[in-house]
Amino acid sequence: MIEDKNKQRTQLSDLGEFGLIDHLTKNFEIKQSSTVKGIGDDAAVLDFKKNKIVVTTDLLVEGVHFDLSYMPLKHLGYKAVVVNLSDVYAMNANATQITVSIGVSNRFPLEALEDLYAGIMTASKVYNIDVVGGDTTSSNTGLLISVTAIGEVEEDNEVYRNGAKPNDLLVVTGDLGGAYLGLQVLEREKEVYKVNPNNQPDLEPYSYVVERQLKPEARKDVVKLLKNLDVKPTSMIDVSDGLSSEIIHICKQSKVGCDLYENKIPLDPQVISACEEFNIDSTTVALNGGEDYELLFTISQKDFPKIKANPSLSVIGYIREPQDGIHLVTRAETKIPIQAQGWKNFNA
Amino acid sequence: MIEDKNKQRTQLSDLGEFGLIDHLTKNFEIKQSSTVKGIGDDAAVLDFKKNKIVVTTDLLVEGVHFDLSYMPLKHLGYKAVVVNLSDVYAMNANATQITVSIGVSNRFPLEALEDLYAGIMTASKVYNIDVVGGDTTSSNTGLLISVTAIGEVEEDNEVYRNGAKPNDLLVVTGDLGGAYLGLQVLEREKEVYKVNPNNQPDLEPYSYVVERQLKPEARKDVVKLLKNLDVKPTSMIDVSDGLSSEIIHICKQSKVGCDLYENKIPLDPQVISACEEFNIDSTTVALNGGEDYELLFTISQKDFPKIKANPSLSVIGYIREPQDGIHLVTRAETKIPIQAQGWKNFNA
Repeated sequence: MIEDKNKQRTQLSDLGEFGLIDHLTKNFEIKQSSTVKGIGDDAAVLDFKKNKIVVTTDLLVEGVHFDLSYMPLKHLGYKAVVVNLSDVYAMNANATQITVSIGVSNRFPLEALEDLYAGIMTASKVYNIDVVGGDTTSSNTGLLISVTAIGEVEEDNEVYRNGAKPNDLLVVTGDLGGAYLGLQVLEREKEVYKVNPNNQPDLEPYSYVVERQLKPEARKDVVKLLKNLDVKPTSMIDVSDGLSSEIIHICKQSKVGCDLYENKIPLDPQVISACEEFNIDSTTVALNGGEDYELLFTISQKDFPKIKANPSLSVIGYIREPQDGIHLVTRAETKIPIQAQGWKNFNA
Repeated sequence: MIEDKNKQRTQLSDLGEFGLIDHLTKNFEIKQSSTVKGIGDDAAVLDFKKNKIVVTTDLLVEGVHFDLSYMPLKHLGYKAVVVNLSDVYAMNANATQITVSIGVSNRFPLEALEDLYAGIMTASKVYNIDVVGGDTTSSNTGLLISVTAIGEVEEDNEVYRNGAKPNDLLVVTGDLGGAYLGLQVLEREKEVYKVNPNNQPDLEPYSYVVERQLKPEARKDVVKLLKNLDVKPTSMIDVSDGLSSEIIHICKQSKVGCDLYENKIPLDPQVISACEEFNIDSTTVALNGGEDYELLFTISQKDFPKIKANPSLSVIGYIREPQDGIHLVTRAETKIPIQAQGWKNFNA
């Protein structure tokens, strides 16, 4: 939408694969002591001493997970890293390294990949992780990004999805639904732009929700906070697909039920006003919107005093016996079963 | 070419993302003691005790790295794993886990993905590795496969590309050029098939080279052999892009020169006869063909007695001072500088 059409274009074929990798990765510095050898050999070599390792991976496909007409490449690079780190933090682990593979068609000049890698580098600095490997290849059509993130966790500190117990409290960080509404705003502006390309969108009233969509952050701070508070969650997951989907994952894997209280779901004022403007229900958005990358976890009730004063943590529910089922307790005090939504890419 | 057009087709949208992952991965068993938690959480958890970890990743794109008109999906799944394991073995490490991400368009039914995963599972059994994570998503066009492989290596046993010293011997495993010739045979048969779809190709005379292309193996056995022989290479790389490219990598990173002896390059008789048939030079094929997934390494001369009797190891060259340059010594005893070729995807 605000693309500079006169940008310099360097053909990727001028560099070749090895030249391209060298060019794009030459500014990546090693920051983690566990990185023995980064980019430049058949594989990276890592040394975690006695700690356990966590590994997670994501594949992002143009036209499915992102739309370059409103997603700047630098933001895309940043987000591709963040969504993977979020999975590492959801294990109560510290993210340390990533590998990044890119598939790219000839329609992208070198400068576009430089923007993408600038975003990757910014994320690696903000989150203090090393880029230790990757692959760069051509693709017939769009842009593909595959990121694998690695982290470390001290003995017995990892948190799975399957440890929630009846009477535990359900806690979520930050607020929900913003990323989904940001996407709605961007999609609407794209339609306006199609009709009148001279129209400059005013995204100012939507700055928070648009940023939640374009430049999400992973809750590294929460992992640190929980450690400082001496709270080890009984289960944890990141909110990538939407609150309902994540609650169901925790309940199914922990073999428990849950009551989620509608009036406790944290919403930013901008989310509430945008919901009114788009005429959609804010609870539906929080439950099914996804891409918030907050952490959802359960704690033993004895730990409640440790977390209750914290403004970035909201107790939103209560873990129950498995036969009680998984329900939303509405503001009208009625109980509605929660059903999974999540990504439905294959229906596209 | 020999596809059954009446195969059962289950739409991926019937399963949804979570259902698809569960379905495809339900038969993967944990075999490695270092796998604490595999598929099913935000990330896998691994425990390597005091060993170092190696990590490598590859992205394979339909139409760039493989052609489904002659590459059966089961073979593709197998090969996608093997090419990554090859990078782990090239570090003198033992491969232990992989993650597999798949991007797939709606033209693929579930049964196609089952074939792909059958190949992945076969490879995981043959190489005794665990599939510990991944991502399954839709793609707008073709099939995408991103594999990340993880391995472990005992303290100080890892081998980099940068340790070759003048007077070291250059050694390669197996034989070279087969995979490239297999591709030539398959491309030729594809053209024949386009003209006459009823023509059944007779691939029997080319069985070895076609298998080298469709079902390559990684040299796990060589890592074990070197350990048994008590030989630690001074440098090592896998032959994925072609011998010339790999020699240049070792020489540049080790800051040495090299003489490669043309008459020492190991060639299978079928490679020699196919080269005659296609009227191409076998040395060119060995130097630039790629995809052989053999290991190329250097050893100190004092280790020569330990390896000389082994039929799967060929001494093909001699490491020289950097100012001597990198040369092929031809059968006619002339010296020709070796230049990198490797993949040239971006010229496509």
